[in-house]
Amino acid sequence: MLYHLHYWPTIQGRGEFIRLALEAAGAPYVDVARGDEPAGQGMTAMSHYLEDDSVSRPPFACPFLVDGKLVISQTAAILLYLGPKLALVGKSEADRLWTHQIQLTIADIVQEVHDTHHPVASGLYYEDQQPEAQRAGRHFRTERIPKYLAWFEAVLSRNPSNAGRLAQGRGPHLVGGRLSYADLSLFQLVEGLLYAFPKATKRQLKKSPHVLALHAGVAQHKRVAAYLASERRLPFSEEGIFRRYPELDG
Amino acid sequence: MLYHLHYWPTIQGRGEFIRLALEAAGAPYVDVARGDEPAGQGMTAMSHYLEDDSVSRPPFACPFLVDGKLVISQTAAILLYLGPKLALVGKSEADRLWTHQIQLTIADIVQEVHDTHHPVASGLYYEDQQPEAQRAGRHFRTERIPKYLAWFEAVLSRNPSNAGRLAQGRGPHLVGGRLSYADLSLFQLVEGLLYAFPKATKRQLKKSPHVLALHAGVAQHKRVAAYLASERRLPFSEEGIFRRYPELDG
Repeated sequence: MLYHLHYWPTIQGRGEFIRLALEAAGAPYVDVARGDEPAGQGMTAMSHYLEDDSVSRPPFACPFLVDGKLVISQTAAILLYLGPKLALVGKSEADRLWTHQIQLTIADIVQEVHDTHHPVASGLYYEDQQPEAQRAGRHFRTERIPKYLAWFEAVLSRNPSNAGRLAQGRGPHLVGGRLSYADLSLFQLVEGLLYAFPKATKRQLKKSPHVLALHAGVAQHKRVAAYLASERRLPFSEEGIFRRYPELDG
Repeated sequence: MLYHLHYWPTIQGRGEFIRLALEAAGAPYVDVARGDEPAGQGMTAMSHYLEDDSVSRPPFACPFLVDGKLVISQTAAILLYLGPKLALVGKSEADRLWTHQIQLTIADIVQEVHDTHHPVASGLYYEDQQPEAQRAGRHFRTERIPKYLAWFEAVLSRNPSNAGRLAQGRGPHLVGGRLSYADLSLFQLVEGLLYAFPKATKRQLKKSPHVLALHAGVAQHKRVAAYLASERRLPFSEEGIFRRYPELDG
């Protein structure tokens, strides 16, 4: 089955959490909006689902995944759906719910990252809300980055499967003893925070050895490493969610 | 099975989406933090899950639901879990995913409502971010309320089950032909918007007849109506997510 991922073609954004899962699993997929219009892809194909009245269950926004007749939007819901199919989540209901909760918490901090540069309105330019952004950035880096990273650190350090893995020099996992989509997303979150708030993030990572080890472990995953080195991996930029505005990093 | 809901005891907040589902289903539950400390309830019981190192899978924040050994946080994840047990979601995977996506989109606008009065930081008082809040409120009521309500209206008007229901004077549903937890949550969203942004919301509801009919239909649901008239239903207030600050409503 060929998955069709629809997301903005020039940024990592929220679509990157889905791309990482598909890539880590070696799943066949099309990044539709990055494809050619004559081949039925490109932005026209994506806009159809968002704008045509004929779509009975329209996504509110991208990213969304089309799998046969199913159209699934909301990053965390897409990963909830893909997890079992890509073997990127545990088999028990408890593990699946816990992985989903972690993913939703990652979604929350991702939204907060976005709001540091768009505290007033997502429809305004950064330049039109810069004073507000500086106040928001200060609170985010001094209160929210520490709070979230401390929670991820607690989750990792309380996962009994990780003691053995770390002793063998292997990266820890958020849930049980196997790689999950939440691990991939936490890797991406740390990547993004290091890009957007390098000073504040490095400071906090010194107190978060498990998070640091997870980040290193995921980066060494064979298919993830190949993806990150490929042209399929778009660079971070000031059009995405994680933006490097030094004035927000203090 | 007695469900244990943990949430702030004095506000509706995000916990209200869970309370409404439990109440509509007539499910037995304890609103733990509103209970008595000597009975092992109250804030002490809630804090245990958030603060004790012995909790292996700690919630990041409330609300969370304890069901036997399971501890589930994140409003949308709790409803994903409860939906089938309370018969508040369809039986097919497609319906369950679609209901969850709608719920996550409701969670998004709820977060945006919160951010109108806390655009800079959730850790600061409203009074310390009032100028920013006025700008944020203006964009929220002129751009975001119309965009979200238009989407809910589209979802309702494209659900083929609703034509017959409306012809019979019955309220429409977001998914299929039965009440789901997403219907209850959309009712609560409209309640909250009418409290916080009465002018902007009433204006937009005139263009959203299906949303209006859903709101009226849910309010007439027997168990929901009994709950809303009871002391268990906390009032809206300026401590919750939906706050009536007239200066933000234009």
